[in-house]
Amino acid sequence: MTDENASVDPRFERVAIIGLGLIGGSLGHAIKRGKLAAHVAGYARSAETRARALEIGFVDSAHETAADAVKNADLVVICTPVGALGPVAAEIEPHLKRGAILTDVGSVKMAVVRDIGPYVPEGVHFIPGHPIAGTEQSGPDSGFAELFDGRWCILTPGPGADRDAVAKLAAFWQACGSKVDYMEPKHHDLVLAIVSHLPHLIAYNIVGTADDLETVTESEVIKYSAGGFRDFTRLASSDPTMWRDICLNNKDAILEMLGRFSEDLSAMQRMIRWGDGEGLFNLFTRTRAVRRSIIEAGQDTAAPNFGRTPAQKK
Amino acid sequence: MTDENASVDPRFERVAIIGLGLIGGSLGHAIKRGKLAAHVAGYARSAETRARALEIGFVDSAHETAADAVKNADLVVICTPVGALGPVAAEIEPHLKRGAILTDVGSVKMAVVRDIGPYVPEGVHFIPGHPIAGTEQSGPDSGFAELFDGRWCILTPGPGADRDAVAKLAAFWQACGSKVDYMEPKHHDLVLAIVSHLPHLIAYNIVGTADDLETVTESEVIKYSAGGFRDFTRLASSDPTMWRDICLNNKDAILEMLGRFSEDLSAMQRMIRWGDGEGLFNLFTRTRAVRRSIIEAGQDTAAPNFGRTPAQKK
Ligand SMILES: NC(=O)c1ccc[n+]([C@@H]2O[C@H](COP(=O)([O-])OP(=O)(O)OC[C@H]3O[C@@H](n4cnc5c(N)ncnc54)[C@H](OP(=O)(O)O)[C@@H]3O)[C@@H](O)[C@H]2O)c1
Ligand SMILES: NC(=O)c1ccc[n+]([C@@H]2O[C@H](COP(=O)([O-])OP(=O)(O)OC[C@H]3O[C@@H](n4cnc5c(N)ncnc54)[C@H](OP(=O)(O)O)[C@@H]3O)[C@@H](O)[C@H]2O)c1
Repeated sequence: MTDENASVDPRFERVAIIGLGLIGGSLGHAIKRGKLAAHVAGYARSAETRARALEIGFVDSAHETAADAVKNADLVVICTPVGALGPVAAEIEPHLKRGAILTDVGSVKMAVVRDIGPYVPEGVHFIPGHPIAGTEQSGPDSGFAELFDGRWCILTPGPGADRDAVAKLAAFWQACGSKVDYMEPKHHDLVLAIVSHLPHLIAYNIVGTADDLETVTESEVIKYSAGGFRDFTRLASSDPTMWRDICLNNKDAILEMLGRFSEDLSAMQRMIRWGDGEGLFNLFTRTRAVRRSIIEAGQDTAAPNFGRTPAQKK
Repeated sequence: MTDENASVDPRFERVAIIGLGLIGGSLGHAIKRGKLAAHVAGYARSAETRARALEIGFVDSAHETAADAVKNADLVVICTPVGALGPVAAEIEPHLKRGAILTDVGSVKMAVVRDIGPYVPEGVHFIPGHPIAGTEQSGPDSGFAELFDGRWCILTPGPGADRDAVAKLAAFWQACGSKVDYMEPKHHDLVLAIVSHLPHLIAYNIVGTADDLETVTESEVIKYSAGGFRDFTRLASSDPTMWRDICLNNKDAILEMLGRFSEDLSAMQRMIRWGDGEGLFNLFTRTRAVRRSIIEAGQDTAAPNFGRTPAQKK
């Protein structure tokens, strides 16, 4: 579909962003950078976040209710944690403009179809979406226009989705810097379980394990974290609400991946216990090719240590 | 001991580095930067590596045997994979200068004492060491002078170690940019099992799991790796020989940590299966404090995404 979009105008008259944190904020910045809307209306739960979004300037107006923010919008993007999508959809339903596109950025997609689907009025185009881009930070100050550049955005339009609406939304994400892909919600949830959910859960888990040890102190873990541990703490400092909601809403795929991971871990444990140097060497060898491919695909940097700046002497 | 070292001269007349890869090379660069030796003699297994080290200039002379390289050296640092330390020590034993300091940089320490200990001649000071600094790269081109800046170097001198020799080696590492700490070899191996060995093994394991899936293709894993997976591929692209040797030589501590990690993972799995949102939220919350402490301790960067440069549009 990418080529078909070349002629599609990616711009909207009025965009409403519901939820003004890392993703909502970055979207606002990307819209401003690309001049993709005449007006960006925003809503967040707290008055602080609304005021901060206006001050930074990635929205043109901030509204006290989501219902108010979506009025007359041609594109509505819900950027709250996954658990809040249903309630937000219920609230905005009567206020959506006929012909508008309704989308989201939630990290799971089957639950989104389940939760938002019932609240989509006749004549509104509901096309779920998920930009595969993020950082460990959250809140209105964490967003930036370049977040989506070169990253994939997955759309999961239903079987009856309007082709023009899908093409328009795809063109919009491309204008925000993304590459666009299409998937079934169920397959999306399986893919994301391995490329995102499992890594985050493993990271939270190992940081928890380290925190519980009686034989190694917390101060030792922190001092010597450059041995590899610190890499995991980045993922493990992501927003707890977001990750709770992902676990609750992608249970089956996550349990499937956790089960496979545990099996493989038992096999590795066995190799270590029995001193199977050849088996270990083979496992440690084949994983290198994956990183090379990720760097070639432009999805990570080849600079050693992610190009981290060297530590300061203290 | 740190304060006592202030008056100790960190320089040596002649330093021999055995093994000229990431750590040996970085040490050579750091010595040159700090003018810490009048002459740096080097040895590596292959003629290619020896030639390259001379060309880059982090050694002043490259020798065809380790025995030859250590002649007349006041400080000998063995920087080969852990499995090669014993054979190297056996080879150089008859050629070590009386009064010289013999040390290593191996990632485990009990096995080093076991393997090198028997080959330490009367009058040579054997002080095992381990700089907690590294990258995922290896070979003579991967080293750089700043690698040790602000990072810890752990020394594990035996009970009868000569105080002056220990102070001299500590002063040397400090002049290379490191902060110096002391530990029992056994405790070192336990600490490193959690801050370095377990993270690497978990990373290798998850990349292996992803590679084996039939339901998600390798190309999908690569495209969407910005969801978190790519962070693990950095550790999982480290040198396979080095990691095989670490597994074979720190078995007990690694199995202990793997066991605890697996237990915790089962508990998390259970929370996900039963939809225990509160339990998950609590786990995901307490891990944030650890990252904050690591950043405050200067052991990682606070920049989102490790300060990775944004992706290129493709
Ligand atoms: N972070 C990532 O890496 C990433 C990547 C891709 C997709 N996503 C998805 O993007 C969505 C937003 O994530 P984020 O990282 O942008 O989160 P965030 O920075 O924490 O921002 C969340 C926003 O939603 C608002 N909000 C929270 N709970 C709400 C509720 N119950 N009702 C109404 N509004 C509520 C918050 O308002 P206040 O500021 O007033 O609290 C805030 O403005 C999530 O669905 C997540 O799964 C995240
Ligand atoms: N990488 C890290 O992050 C890190 C951090 C702290 C400590 N360490 C420890 O530092 C040591 C070296 O690691 P590295 O990353 O520098 O490895 P590296 O880049 O692979 O370099 C290893 C060097 O040792 C030589 N060598 C390999 N096998 C040998 C053998 N059997 N006999 C004699 N020489 C041999 C190699 O020679 P050729 O080049 O000719 O093959 C090469 O010069 C290991 O003990 C490791 O545990 C590593």
